[in-house]
Amino acid sequence: MLIVKKFGGSSVADKEHIYNVAKRCIEDYQKGNDVVVVLSAMGKTTDRLLEMAKDFNPNPSKREVDMLLATGEQTSTALMSMAMGALGVPSVSLNAFQITMHTSSRYGNARFKKIDTQRIRHELENRKIVIVTGFQGINKYDDLTTLGRGGSDTTAVALAAVLHADSCEIYTDVEGVYTADPRIVPNAKKIPEITYDEMLELATLGAKVLHNRSVEMAKKYGVQLVVRSSLNNAEGTIVKEETDMESMLVSGVAIDKNTARIAVFGVKDTPGIAFKIFDLLARKNINVDVILQSIGREGTKDISFTVARDDAEETVAILEEHKSRITAKRIEMNDTVAKVSVVGAGMQSNPGVASRMFEALYNAGINIRMIATSEIRITVLINEEDVEKAMRAVHDQFIED
Amino acid sequence: MLIVKKFGGSSVADKEHIYNVAKRCIEDYQKGNDVVVVLSAMGKTTDRLLEMAKDFNPNPSKREVDMLLATGEQTSTALMSMAMGALGVPSVSLNAFQITMHTSSRYGNARFKKIDTQRIRHELENRKIVIVTGFQGINKYDDLTTLGRGGSDTTAVALAAVLHADSCEIYTDVEGVYTADPRIVPNAKKIPEITYDEMLELATLGAKVLHNRSVEMAKKYGVQLVVRSSLNNAEGTIVKEETDMESMLVSGVAIDKNTARIAVFGVKDTPGIAFKIFDLLARKNINVDVILQSIGREGTKDISFTVARDDAEETVAILEEHKSRITAKRIEMNDTVAKVSVVGAGMQSNPGVASRMFEALYNAGINIRMIATSEIRITVLINEEDVEKAMRAVHDQFIED
Repeated sequence: MLIVKKFGGSSVADKEHIYNVAKRCIEDYQKGNDVVVVLSAMGKTTDRLLEMAKDFNPNPSKREVDMLLATGEQTSTALMSMAMGALGVPSVSLNAFQITMHTSSRYGNARFKKIDTQRIRHELENRKIVIVTGFQGINKYDDLTTLGRGGSDTTAVALAAVLHADSCEIYTDVEGVYTADPRIVPNAKKIPEITYDEMLELATLGAKVLHNRSVEMAKKYGVQLVVRSSLNNAEGTIVKEETDMESMLVSGVAIDKNTARIAVFGVKDTPGIAFKIFDLLARKNINVDVILQSIGREGTKDISFTVARDDAEETVAILEEHKSRITAKRIEMNDTVAKVSVVGAGMQSNPGVASRMFEALYNAGINIRMIATSEIRITVLINEEDVEKAMRAVHDQFIED
Repeated sequence: MLIVKKFGGSSVADKEHIYNVAKRCIEDYQKGNDVVVVLSAMGKTTDRLLEMAKDFNPNPSKREVDMLLATGEQTSTALMSMAMGALGVPSVSLNAFQITMHTSSRYGNARFKKIDTQRIRHELENRKIVIVTGFQGINKYDDLTTLGRGGSDTTAVALAAVLHADSCEIYTDVEGVYTADPRIVPNAKKIPEITYDEMLELATLGAKVLHNRSVEMAKKYGVQLVVRSSLNNAEGTIVKEETDMESMLVSGVAIDKNTARIAVFGVKDTPGIAFKIFDLLARKNINVDVILQSIGREGTKDISFTVARDDAEETVAILEEHKSRITAKRIEMNDTVAKVSVVGAGMQSNPGVASRMFEALYNAGINIRMIATSEIRITVLINEEDVEKAMRAVHDQFIED
């Protein structure tokens, strides 16, 4: 078997953690498997380096930031190899140059383009554990790039894809993917299997276990993922194309507080107004989420939508600047809202899910402000203060039954 | 002009120092020069990383140690580029992969084999200051190597050679090369010009301003060096093939306490004995320095020599083990000795230097235990307790006159 194992920063935060990870990898190695380990930087190293960069230059060159950040994984992988050496097992650390992990040119948010497997194959043939720097690549200028937050997950999936790995294990500080955040819903259950699409909806909606890009890539290349704990041997959650069991009606409940509602009142009810609004925002790279359009008074309409909370002020400023062009009477912003979503592949053939969700919220006395749906997801916008109560109510309705 | 400037760890120890260096480099840049800056890791980073490696594995893989150490210069160069950016000047940091600085395979002590200039030339043509990671290279396996202590000097000289630089400036925390250590000889003088050969003799003998390998490489490729202070604008010391001024009789006095005397008494006076002794030591990589052979009693002879103090015990152990083979009656070790040397290109045509040196030592009441000479150097071995008095006496004799 060829196994790719990825460990995040908290799993390699210090010598003790690194030795624990080394031992886990050696267990697999000693069963005769080929083992490729992808590591993040130790603990909060990346944050610390980013702070250092900001201290040197409040607006540092992104190219140089990536040059600086890339030292983090080079450090953790070299130390991991030393730990494995002390445990008597041959290993080799490899960085983005040594493997030739080609990415797009965009510093800080690069995408993999091509990964050479020759060096890794060669080291595996020599029965070495191969330890790879996550999160980084090189672009066509031979400059170091980084993949953005959660990039090490993407490195692991990409390697699993090009190496045709038998397994890609993402180790984290929880035991897998849960039906809801266990800190909010104490009786949340670990999900044994989940589809890529469900995982994507959950990840987008705030379940921070797996980075979305890594799930998208796993789906694209058919890489089966296992999410499990680096702290124990509990079975984790398998993420795959189709789950073996009958699709759960609802596999999870997610909340997202990073949202704000923008309302544009009294725009002319003529074609093209909605386009103008969302085109203005797209040009400023502002992502718009749930959209609602309602008929207003006297031939006008009201358009509401949500944006990430950080973008809310800029969104209002842009719309105010172009108020006359978009024919708006008034623009309002509310950043004390939150999204609650239920996700489940089984929804596609069970139309009653939405009404059951609304019923649960009604019984809990929670007011719904906006509704959005996809094939396998129903999202409602509610007041932020109600979000935990709502999550428990919806979880009880679908998972506990 | 194309100027290569090298700054050591203490010159880039923190933000303030890095900004100072950035400003110095920008001064040259703004005069229209092409500027290539070679940096060491910040402050004591390399020592700290080595300690970390030892903590993870008392006997770490040298390949992995170099992987770890190489992060030090990548960090300092990226931060330097950010500082220059904040000062409004375009720059780019480049590591060993990006330039392709090929070295031999020996981790921890690699030698440059070939350095590509294409990337550096390209960046200089775009009017960027090029900031290069000192101390490191890549070998034929695409593994990172380091050049050993003082390696950043060697990087600077190697780059100056392949780029045909007009000047190669080595910045340090002293103003240049002195006729003696100013902490011991308060009236020591800064030497304005010195030949490569003199510098090599002084460096070998303990004047820690320039790494020997960098001077050897400068001599080989005819790179004129300037040693100067990173703290002020004082003119430094120029190191070149021939000094313009008439050769000084003695350009400097150096001391070296890292020495021990080994005496092998009563070996048979037959051919091959000396060879056997030094061959035994060479096989264990022990460097032998000053050698003295004297006639003993009854057809025997005594052989004395010096080794680095760290090697003294091992040397005695090796000789004791082969005592009968080398026909030795007795082996003695003395590690409370030191070497004092005078160096000067002018000696070659002035035979009286040795006797004047001995006279100075005699007048100071210092006993000479061994003598060794080269074309431009006279070295005497004395008791360690006399070394500072000897240095002042010899300095007074030659430099003060």
